[in-house]
Amino acid sequence: MKFPTNLQKMVPHTTETLNNERKKANFPIRDMESFMNGEKNIKLQEKALKIIRADPEIFDQRNIYFMSRNEKLEHSLRQEKKVQELLREKKIDANDISHIYSLLDWPSPFDLSRGMFIPTLEQQGTDEQKEAFLKPAKEYKIIGCYAQTEMGHGSNIRSLETTATFIEETDEFQINSPTLTSTKWWIGSLGIVSTHACVMAQLYVKGKHIGLFPIVVPIRSMIDHKPLPGVTVGDIGPKLGYNTMDNGFLNFNKVRVPRFNLLQKYITVTRNGTVSRPANINPRITYGTMVFVRANIAANMGRQLAKGITIAVRYTSVRRQFGESGQPETPVLDYSIVQYRVIPLLAKTYAMIGMSQEFFSEYEKTAALIDVGDFSKLKEMHAVSCGLKRWSSETTLYGVDTCRHVCGGHGFSMFSGLNEFFNGLYPNIIWEGDNYVLAKQTASYLVKSAHALRQRESVEVNDTTDMIRHFMNIDNQLTPQQLFTWSGKSAQQIAGDNSVLLDLLSLRAVSMVHDLAVKIYRKGQSWDDSSVPSQGIATAHSEYIVCLYFSRHIKKLSSNSPLRPILDILFKITALSFLTRNTGELYSLRNEAALTRAQINGLESEYIEYIKIAREQAVPLVDALGVPDEKLNSSLGRYDGNVYEDYMARALNEPLNRDGTGDEIRKRFYQQYIGPTLHHNEAQSGAKL
Amino acid sequence: MKFPTNLQKMVPHTTETLNNERKKANFPIRDMESFMNGEKNIKLQEKALKIIRADPEIFDQRNIYFMSRNEKLEHSLRQEKKVQELLREKKIDANDISHIYSLLDWPSPFDLSRGMFIPTLEQQGTDEQKEAFLKPAKEYKIIGCYAQTEMGHGSNIRSLETTATFIEETDEFQINSPTLTSTKWWIGSLGIVSTHACVMAQLYVKGKHIGLFPIVVPIRSMIDHKPLPGVTVGDIGPKLGYNTMDNGFLNFNKVRVPRFNLLQKYITVTRNGTVSRPANINPRITYGTMVFVRANIAANMGRQLAKGITIAVRYTSVRRQFGESGQPETPVLDYSIVQYRVIPLLAKTYAMIGMSQEFFSEYEKTAALIDVGDFSKLKEMHAVSCGLKRWSSETTLYGVDTCRHVCGGHGFSMFSGLNEFFNGLYPNIIWEGDNYVLAKQTASYLVKSAHALRQRESVEVNDTTDMIRHFMNIDNQLTPQQLFTWSGKSAQQIAGDNSVLLDLLSLRAVSMVHDLAVKIYRKGQSWDDSSVPSQGIATAHSEYIVCLYFSRHIKKLSSNSPLRPILDILFKITALSFLTRNTGELYSLRNEAALTRAQINGLESEYIEYIKIAREQAVPLVDALGVPDEKLNSSLGRYDGNVYEDYMARALNEPLNRDGTGDEIRKRFYQQYIGPTLHHNEAQSGAKL
Ligand SMILES: Cc1cc2nc3c(=O)[nH]c(=O)nc-3n(C[C@H](O)[C@H](O)[C@H](O)COP(=O)(O)OP(=O)(O)OC[C@H]3O[C@@H](n4cnc5c(N)ncnc54)[C@H](O)[C@@H]3O)c2cc1C
Ligand SMILES: Cc1cc2nc3c(=O)[nH]c(=O)nc-3n(C[C@H](O)[C@H](O)[C@H](O)COP(=O)(O)OP(=O)(O)OC[C@H]3O[C@@H](n4cnc5c(N)ncnc54)[C@H](O)[C@@H]3O)c2cc1C
Repeated sequence: MKFPTNLQKMVPHTTETLNNERKKANFPIRDMESFMNGEKNIKLQEKALKIIRADPEIFDQRNIYFMSRNEKLEHSLRQEKKVQELLREKKIDANDISHIYSLLDWPSPFDLSRGMFIPTLEQQGTDEQKEAFLKPAKEYKIIGCYAQTEMGHGSNIRSLETTATFIEETDEFQINSPTLTSTKWWIGSLGIVSTHACVMAQLYVKGKHIGLFPIVVPIRSMIDHKPLPGVTVGDIGPKLGYNTMDNGFLNFNKVRVPRFNLLQKYITVTRNGTVSRPANINPRITYGTMVFVRANIAANMGRQLAKGITIAVRYTSVRRQFGESGQPETPVLDYSIVQYRVIPLLAKTYAMIGMSQEFFSEYEKTAALIDVGDFSKLKEMHAVSCGLKRWSSETTLYGVDTCRHVCGGHGFSMFSGLNEFFNGLYPNIIWEGDNYVLAKQTASYLVKSAHALRQRESVEVNDTTDMIRHFMNIDNQLTPQQLFTWSGKSAQQIAGDNSVLLDLLSLRAVSMVHDLAVKIYRKGQSWDDSSVPSQGIATAHSEYIVCLYFSRHIKKLSSNSPLRPILDILFKITALSFLTRNTGELYSLRNEAALTRAQINGLESEYIEYIKIAREQAVPLVDALGVPDEKLNSSLGRYDGNVYEDYMARALNEPLNRDGTGDEIRKRFYQQYIGPTLHHNEAQSGAKL
Repeated sequence: MKFPTNLQKMVPHTTETLNNERKKANFPIRDMESFMNGEKNIKLQEKALKIIRADPEIFDQRNIYFMSRNEKLEHSLRQEKKVQELLREKKIDANDISHIYSLLDWPSPFDLSRGMFIPTLEQQGTDEQKEAFLKPAKEYKIIGCYAQTEMGHGSNIRSLETTATFIEETDEFQINSPTLTSTKWWIGSLGIVSTHACVMAQLYVKGKHIGLFPIVVPIRSMIDHKPLPGVTVGDIGPKLGYNTMDNGFLNFNKVRVPRFNLLQKYITVTRNGTVSRPANINPRITYGTMVFVRANIAANMGRQLAKGITIAVRYTSVRRQFGESGQPETPVLDYSIVQYRVIPLLAKTYAMIGMSQEFFSEYEKTAALIDVGDFSKLKEMHAVSCGLKRWSSETTLYGVDTCRHVCGGHGFSMFSGLNEFFNGLYPNIIWEGDNYVLAKQTASYLVKSAHALRQRESVEVNDTTDMIRHFMNIDNQLTPQQLFTWSGKSAQQIAGDNSVLLDLLSLRAVSMVHDLAVKIYRKGQSWDDSSVPSQGIATAHSEYIVCLYFSRHIKKLSSNSPLRPILDILFKITALSFLTRNTGELYSLRNEAALTRAQINGLESEYIEYIKIAREQAVPLVDALGVPDEKLNSSLGRYDGNVYEDYMARALNEPLNRDGTGDEIRKRFYQQYIGPTLHHNEAQSGAKL
């Protein structure tokens, strides 16, 4: 299809508008990118970009919006095959893979082998098992998956039904799926690809139930990839998103594997069925990995929200609608309500990225301590990581939704880049602990810590207990002025002082923890009945931690850094967005902690004012997030601002519009379905169609 | 692929659990269905069900989750062709069509002809124009679309760029798209199907700009359906959802149509270019239709949320996870936090359906008044309809999202029935006025009404002004006790009295209106700066109206009706969910209106208690919404509770798993992509793959 080329040019053109926005930058963009993303990541992304640009036939993602599920799967298998070739040719190393997929912005069907199968073997395999399974997995001679969830059980893994029974006669385990609901389900890399599965099964030895353990089970033939005897395996079918992943199901009809295949680092079953477990099991196994995985999700979420907000900011800067007569229409980002939807998300993107860097260094400190036998930081890390995984996945997912809604109708087009994207992000609120279940864990840690402090038990020292200890002010060491730093101050003064904002955020969380602790410990409320307030507590706690860590990140800059003023404003917007989210949480603060109505209303006004300031820097700020066009894959978010031209070009490329093949489809649709209706009378009267 | 059949049966089986839930019903389900849906609709749905059941090859929707965009489009064109045959055979009439599509639960590419093209002709065409365009459109001899939105303009239609210029020499209009952004965009039924477009264009006569008017333009040949000269038309490409609709683009390169084609009921251009407009243009044209369309969306939303909540309630009733040892695990709907997510949505579904019935009868009253020249109710109807469209589309869309999230991982499977569904619902928050833009209109009506009342101007009498008038209490006719009916009452008493809840809801809205009016009229705040608080005001106002109308609907029942107790509880849950949403709105009530902390905390507890009560009736309550399995199209929501069996059956039917065709695809994937990686070493060393 040809589109007219004789059209008048738009004035002012969207590219011009975007460039004018860039001229407003009051900070060095490249330095900001370096500070937020780190030089190392910038370099790795550049390398990955070169690789995918060099081979557009394989790596170009422009056409994915036209693809059926199978076409997507095939496209991504083709990409993975190429990645493997690059690896073997030593043009990339294992490290580069995640950067390549981050640009392609969808999962590879090999991902679970890299992301779960291999790490499990590393942690729980003996040296011989590593030789047998880990080595070939790393060389991609076998591909594995992590088969934990079953049709009937996800959150409650203790009730998984798959069994692994020791058969002494033959020195084997027999793996069995007794019921329909025991069928392994949702397992990534399983449906089409894997040769092996690391299966979580209830271990039975000599009639005794030992517990849940991982066991490596070959599932497809190494010769022709057909399912092995007793194995029923397939793809679980289409999903909202994430469709380049072959999430699969797996049912075992009494499948035998050698005893050797039970991962034996933390459990041993001898030839004659004696079961033993090492004495000092490092709690890092159970907790540490989960903390790590959740920390990773939190870190990844910031980079994802960066994509969404880049599209929303660039498009709302150039989309014009209404305005003064005689003037070019107003960019919609100039409307308060649009700013109110967009700018806080921009601030939170920065906060999330900054927070995750600090959180990772906390994580590394914790890991180092554990290595020398000190587990004192682990419990809090666990609670914080549950909270941050929850907060960051929710903020990102619904933030991306806000980004698409703010684009108006065009946000609904796949070419906005925000829809396939939203759909792929969705499982982050479910996997690695459903967000609603995670909140209970964070809140329970908080409430128990508060209780322990109140009982004057010794409690480990960390950011969370520091916050509680401070405001519980046992022995009244601090004066009200020291505690309630906002009292007597105007809203402007409060918002002007980052440390006061942090104090307010932490007192708010502590006060909610206190209220729940009273209900639980004094009034005997059940934990289940506490699960509703637990959500609010987990949120308030995460909001405090996000601001705390983000402020620490900002403090790394010298005090006269040109990056500081705008980062400070983003900090304030983030903090104020949290504080004004539900002002009931502020109104309910009591006694000397109380805020006045004027302070609360004033904070809402301050919030709007800071949003207005940040709006002026919005385009430079998203530029500094460094998300390349390849990853955006969006007409609306293009760096060069050629929104409408690109949008039109993509529409013309819609299969239905293509010359030849598209003409054929439309002709067929017309002849078979549309024509017979339009011409039914003529047909009846014998006239020709 | 065969799945093992020798598996143990689940105990208790999900069907048994669901049946036990049904036994708890404390109200007559069929009567409830009749009260909520109306006998007429029940009958029409039964008829539609019969029709689609009679022809599964055409109407069965089970396989849509496997379809590519084009396959969906073709499936729906095939269905429409069948619908047309049934129409001609007089097996159905025009009324039945919407019921059929409501069950199929996706749009037909013919919908915009029925929904927008025909109504516009009815309203704005002269008799001759009706003969020329409306008659053939109704007989499906031509198919039309409504081409208003352009690439560059959606909300601000006054700045549309398409022109229609009168050419006196030839007695024609010349339709032109001067720029890329003037290309018509998003137009439903246009991309593949339409023969005609009703184009909104800027009318120019003798060099003078007259304004925006609709004009009928033939766009495709009636002989071979090819685009006519000067017309560039195509499909705008894939969207998040709604993909059976051929939303299209349309560009005119100086296309001529006869002068006759300008819809002339409200504008006349004579042969020599004299322009005239009838004196008394009925404001119903501009307002009335919009009110009608929005009322329709609001009404439709309730029926859609009914689908989402049916799936969520049934599945969470049978999904078991965790629990006491030795017992069957606990259905997740027994957990407070799950109830808290699900039950208020169930209540709101009832509220939304009840509200929309009352709103429709208000609409009809307004229309009847207009017909006798009385426009006094129109402005409020407009403001209320903006608010209700906004509230109901947002509540439904994000309600459905909550429904899928509460299903855990399985919610993410297309077989949940909630994903294609969510995606198709999405545009409701954008079209017919973007929700954020609509809020400004509602709030502006409220603030202006309050101001007029304060100025003692005469203001029309309606539910909204009644509410404001009451609480403004000009001349202090009412005592504080009469106004603030909650004061001195316990939370239990407040929640126990529906009229007190209504008072609180209305005072809350009025108080927010008051605060904004002060800012605007006394402090000179701009309307744009008021757009943020306008959102909250529009929400609070709609929440009041929803509860008001729902309570009126309940009052239609006799006071001893067995339906009343549970409806009363659903009313309270709805009201309390609104009141506790952001308790800051309650804390900020002033002086004699103020609520105490104990009252506010108490309302939160009452809310939880009522949720617990309604949980017991949840399954009967969704049964009474009468959404058949065909419309649910969900493994998780099946009436018979056979969740896992159906889920497995659907997965086995996934194209990748099918015997023959699926085997072929997997073999090809293996040979081309997976095998070469697994066996690369062997290949290198010359071993065979
Ligand atoms: C795209 C995707 C990929 C996945 N990949 C893998 C994989 O590779 N390997 C693997 O093993 N698994 C995988 N999973 C499974 C995932 O880990 C589970 O879906 C997740 O753990 C949630 O469990 P569930 O689905 O059984 O939810 P359920 O536990 O059934 O939860 C249902 C609902 O009940 C609520 N709920 C449950 N328990 C409680 C409670 N005690 N109190 C209050 N509320 C409760 C939940 O919040 C939820 O709303 C994947 C899932 C998805 C969606
Ligand atoms: C699936 C679908 C089907 C459609 N079908 C049709 C059809 O058949 N015929 C037809 O003519 N149209 C159709 N439309 C178009 C639809 O009517 C428009 O998308 C809608 O009116 C919104 O306009 P827009 O997309 O231009 O958004 P914009 O107006 O560009 O809005 C962009 C953003 O700016 C904000 N904004 C805009 N103005 C203001 C303001 N003054 N103050 C504050 N914020 C503002 C909005 O809230 C939004 O967030 C369809 C759209 C969709 C998604």
